[in-house]
Amino acid sequence: MKKWIPIASGLVAGFVAATISFADLSSSPKTTEAANSSTKSNAEKVYVPFGQKDDYYLIDSGGHSGQLFVYGVPSMREIRTIPVFSPDSATGYGFDSRTKKMLGGYTWGDLHHPALSETNGDYDGKFLFATDVGNSRAAAVDLKTWTTRDIIKVPNTAGPHCAAFVTENTEYMFLPTRFAVPLGQKYESLDEYHSKYRGVMSAVTFDQNKEKLNIAYQVALPPWSYDLSDAGKKSSKDWAVLTTYNTEESTTTMEINASQADRDYIVLFNWKELAKMVKEGKYTDVNGQKMIFPEKQKGGIYLIPVAKSPHGVDVTPDGKYFIASGKLAPAMTVFSFEKAFKAVENKDFSGERNGIPILNYKSVMEREVNPENALGPLHTQFDNKGMAYTTMFISSEIVKWNPKTGETLDRVPVQYSPGHSVAAEGDTVAPDGKWLVALNKLAKDNFLSVGPSHPETMQLIDISGKMNVVDTVPVNPEPHYAQMIKADKIKSINVYPKDTKNPDAVYKKSDARIVRKGNEVHVYGIAMRSRFIFDAKAKRPDVIEVNQGDHVFIHLTDIDFDEDITHGFAINDYNLNMEVQPGETNTLEFTADKAGTFPLYCTNFCSALHQEMNGYFLVKPKK
Amino acid sequence: MKKWIPIASGLVAGFVAATISFADLSSSPKTTEAANSSTKSNAEKVYVPFGQKDDYYLIDSGGHSGQLFVYGVPSMREIRTIPVFSPDSATGYGFDSRTKKMLGGYTWGDLHHPALSETNGDYDGKFLFATDVGNSRAAAVDLKTWTTRDIIKVPNTAGPHCAAFVTENTEYMFLPTRFAVPLGQKYESLDEYHSKYRGVMSAVTFDQNKEKLNIAYQVALPPWSYDLSDAGKKSSKDWAVLTTYNTEESTTTMEINASQADRDYIVLFNWKELAKMVKEGKYTDVNGQKMIFPEKQKGGIYLIPVAKSPHGVDVTPDGKYFIASGKLAPAMTVFSFEKAFKAVENKDFSGERNGIPILNYKSVMEREVNPENALGPLHTQFDNKGMAYTTMFISSEIVKWNPKTGETLDRVPVQYSPGHSVAAEGDTVAPDGKWLVALNKLAKDNFLSVGPSHPETMQLIDISGKMNVVDTVPVNPEPHYAQMIKADKIKSINVYPKDTKNPDAVYKKSDARIVRKGNEVHVYGIAMRSRFIFDAKAKRPDVIEVNQGDHVFIHLTDIDFDEDITHGFAINDYNLNMEVQPGETNTLEFTADKAGTFPLYCTNFCSALHQEMNGYFLVKPKK
Repeated sequence: MKKWIPIASGLVAGFVAATISFADLSSSPKTTEAANSSTKSNAEKVYVPFGQKDDYYLIDSGGHSGQLFVYGVPSMREIRTIPVFSPDSATGYGFDSRTKKMLGGYTWGDLHHPALSETNGDYDGKFLFATDVGNSRAAAVDLKTWTTRDIIKVPNTAGPHCAAFVTENTEYMFLPTRFAVPLGQKYESLDEYHSKYRGVMSAVTFDQNKEKLNIAYQVALPPWSYDLSDAGKKSSKDWAVLTTYNTEESTTTMEINASQADRDYIVLFNWKELAKMVKEGKYTDVNGQKMIFPEKQKGGIYLIPVAKSPHGVDVTPDGKYFIASGKLAPAMTVFSFEKAFKAVENKDFSGERNGIPILNYKSVMEREVNPENALGPLHTQFDNKGMAYTTMFISSEIVKWNPKTGETLDRVPVQYSPGHSVAAEGDTVAPDGKWLVALNKLAKDNFLSVGPSHPETMQLIDISGKMNVVDTVPVNPEPHYAQMIKADKIKSINVYPKDTKNPDAVYKKSDARIVRKGNEVHVYGIAMRSRFIFDAKAKRPDVIEVNQGDHVFIHLTDIDFDEDITHGFAINDYNLNMEVQPGETNTLEFTADKAGTFPLYCTNFCSALHQEMNGYFLVKPKK
Repeated sequence: MKKWIPIASGLVAGFVAATISFADLSSSPKTTEAANSSTKSNAEKVYVPFGQKDDYYLIDSGGHSGQLFVYGVPSMREIRTIPVFSPDSATGYGFDSRTKKMLGGYTWGDLHHPALSETNGDYDGKFLFATDVGNSRAAAVDLKTWTTRDIIKVPNTAGPHCAAFVTENTEYMFLPTRFAVPLGQKYESLDEYHSKYRGVMSAVTFDQNKEKLNIAYQVALPPWSYDLSDAGKKSSKDWAVLTTYNTEESTTTMEINASQADRDYIVLFNWKELAKMVKEGKYTDVNGQKMIFPEKQKGGIYLIPVAKSPHGVDVTPDGKYFIASGKLAPAMTVFSFEKAFKAVENKDFSGERNGIPILNYKSVMEREVNPENALGPLHTQFDNKGMAYTTMFISSEIVKWNPKTGETLDRVPVQYSPGHSVAAEGDTVAPDGKWLVALNKLAKDNFLSVGPSHPETMQLIDISGKMNVVDTVPVNPEPHYAQMIKADKIKSINVYPKDTKNPDAVYKKSDARIVRKGNEVHVYGIAMRSRFIFDAKAKRPDVIEVNQGDHVFIHLTDIDFDEDITHGFAINDYNLNMEVQPGETNTLEFTADKAGTFPLYCTNFCSALHQEMNGYFLVKPKK
């Protein structure tokens, strides 16, 4: 391994300086060459006229918004926000009974890396997974309805940043964590960090029929930070790779202390071997989870030295190589899976750390690639010819290069400070080429000012020839990663089918009724253009009257089986809103603790007489 | 007044039918003529290349999202979501002490009509006001920082849909309500609707220096629904107009019953006269509010008959006319302020309703305008030549016409179902012309499908010549109204100035400290690239340790006085996140009820070593 002299001697200081003054490094907007030479053509490239549709879905992580943002490519128009880890006032997400229970009281999330489900290493358009760094959760989104169907809280872990990534046939989604904590997150002094803290990785499965996530097992990795990851493909499909930082195991002032050592590690593991261990009972029960301790259960997990604090590690589409990006070292390192397998087989170890064998760097490394003056490589994507595109955070550019030769092929500036980038079908065994989107961390003066807090930026790059930035768009916080899938792979439904087995659903107007059981009131109601029917037989069918203190369930079915005719249901001053999509049944459950007269109304525009779609919720005061 | 024969005899039924089948009326996307003839030119018109900025801010109501969305025109890129009535995970809005208190426990809102502050009838770019139909609130947003500065709960009222609109020098913002409720919202049978229910209008003032909203007085209007409104301009500046529906005072099945009568009313009032009444003590105290009862305190408020269930009423830029749009009558009615003043002076009344005099329709009406086959007129905007643009909900088009002659000048189809539209500076005494945006209620098949719940749509129309739809973009729920202001009128700041009087602020690293008072722990901390400093003297300055049950205040100052360098602060698994913008001090207050080890970290990307900006929150368990 090369000694990164400039890094070891001064780069940490240099980078700290850079972080203070990198505004200078990323200078004011320059009109790109491309924009100069073909503004007209760029305008046309991104313009999708009325009556036509985009070619790709771009599904962007919303970071600390907790949500997903769905864009169309090439128009870069945001089509929809999909609520995942945070409540959403607009759709009543976190208000209706199902989603309220699913959110479990959490009111914010920090959604990092979305991962589309795969079949044979290719996106299959069925589901999308994502993790929450803020409150350590994982979620599954069904792409037929674009709704979050399940969320699990992952115990023993803190902040699954190094996720989600799925194996070639979505057997597992792995969730390694960014933060080390004592097992069970109990109180332990930081002086005991080395012995008591762990960075836990969870192996999560998803039952596509039941739409349920489950934790299969966990691995108690060393107390390091796990940053990014990728699953193997084809010949490497049973394996996966993670990057690490803070292998220094420092416990304070991380921006200096976690950047001391000249090298960190790639974690290479064989998930089939780990599953076998678990099957054979080679684990310890930790708070109800099957935990593998690598220092006790040897095998299946290996370390590979890599230049300091790498960010991304990305497997080439052919599954033969994995590429680590240096972050604090100005190089991408290409490793060979085949060589790694051989090193494992031959026990070609240079030592061990925390009980895990370290593969001999020279035996596994294919090449170190160091494009001239390219600084801060973070993350790599691929095109249809196997060429690599790496974001350079510090030099604010995308570098195109050949993983098989290390040759630099093209470079294009992006502004400001690209983190990840995403290529069309870029994480699959068969990327499409054509488009790459740079996910930039800052907007600075790119757009009209909206005060001290700016948006982030996405830039669309045409990679069909010489790289050309064709559009720059603002984006809400915060694009950590995204995936781009061909539009025709997604088979969304337009209307929920009738569910005659659902006891809460009412499809016939005459069946709408209010049933009282003690102090529980169940409303079985209908929403339709342009009225609510709660009690078909009442003098005022659109009025609900209860007693103060009653526990109220409002079950509502949208019987407009018609595209785009979603209804909302809100009770004024009761701080309640839910949505019923066409054909859907949904429930609001609450206690009528406030006496008085409260208008109720449809919140989601539905017809010319939407404004007339209202009634009253009357709460008779306690004597 | 014309008898709207087709309406009286069958239009209600027709409209009900239409609402069931209007999907047929709004046919599948047709490529517009414009798009056919000049796709290239449209692409160029909306393309804002990197290094250039948009010409206008479009500030769009987010409806039941509770928020505002800020767009750039002509690019139609969403620049930012501004949280107003709902918490926002991304910015920690509703989590930090100031905004949590301001939201007062409400977790959703239904933001309808934004109104920019005005000076001499022109947008002055200082503030923006908005109201919440869901929980009956009003808010003020400071456009220097694009943050919500004050929210008030408006008592005695339910759902200020018919708002906000400001008078010519932002003396008042008026909030008439859509729903009638008993005064104080107490429980009363709907059988007592006529005598006990009221539609209350609130006159709200805003102190620009203290950034405080205040209710000056209220008016107990009849129990009707107040829909839309506008303030007078120039010679009519002391007056304002509101539309009404359900003057039938029906209490159920509104989509039929509120559309029975052949006419509803415009409410015309003189706000200076009302203010004078209040000053003279001519009001009744109702739950602490100064309430004017028009049937007791005569004068200042008048009714004008208008074709049934009008939606918008809009004052022409010259202040001479107000135009009501029929919704359930296929006509726009132009009324003359001058004639109305004369009728008031001459007591030219045709009777009264609920104690309020009705002006003689014929004496006030200037003309009825009924463009051929134009159905469902909802809302009118104006250009720089005084020409009117009215959205036609049912015939899905914009009709351009001359208010002084009634002549139809141009028409362009929009899809689907336009509600409001907004012109550049369109509500001022001096509209700009150039751009009009149609705010469409449905998207249907316009964009890539995101399941049964679709986005809404905005369409940008070039009105500099023959109307031409140049772009169609999706938008999150739900664009009820928007305002469009010239970019150079907004003077945003990039960094918060030092506030040396703020006892919670810490600007010197060595001042960072943790102060314990009994079981209260105050952290006076710093966020800077790339670390937290909570206690400058501690062994681990980025660690906070408290005892279980402690009440914790984390005061955090962002000392990076540098554009776009916002920090976030989250505690993993404690469901807490806040934002500190450059130079800002912010506070999180909570009880450390859960013992254990919890990583804390910066959630808002800030530098190359952002990922290393973390520490720990340790909570020692109770013995």
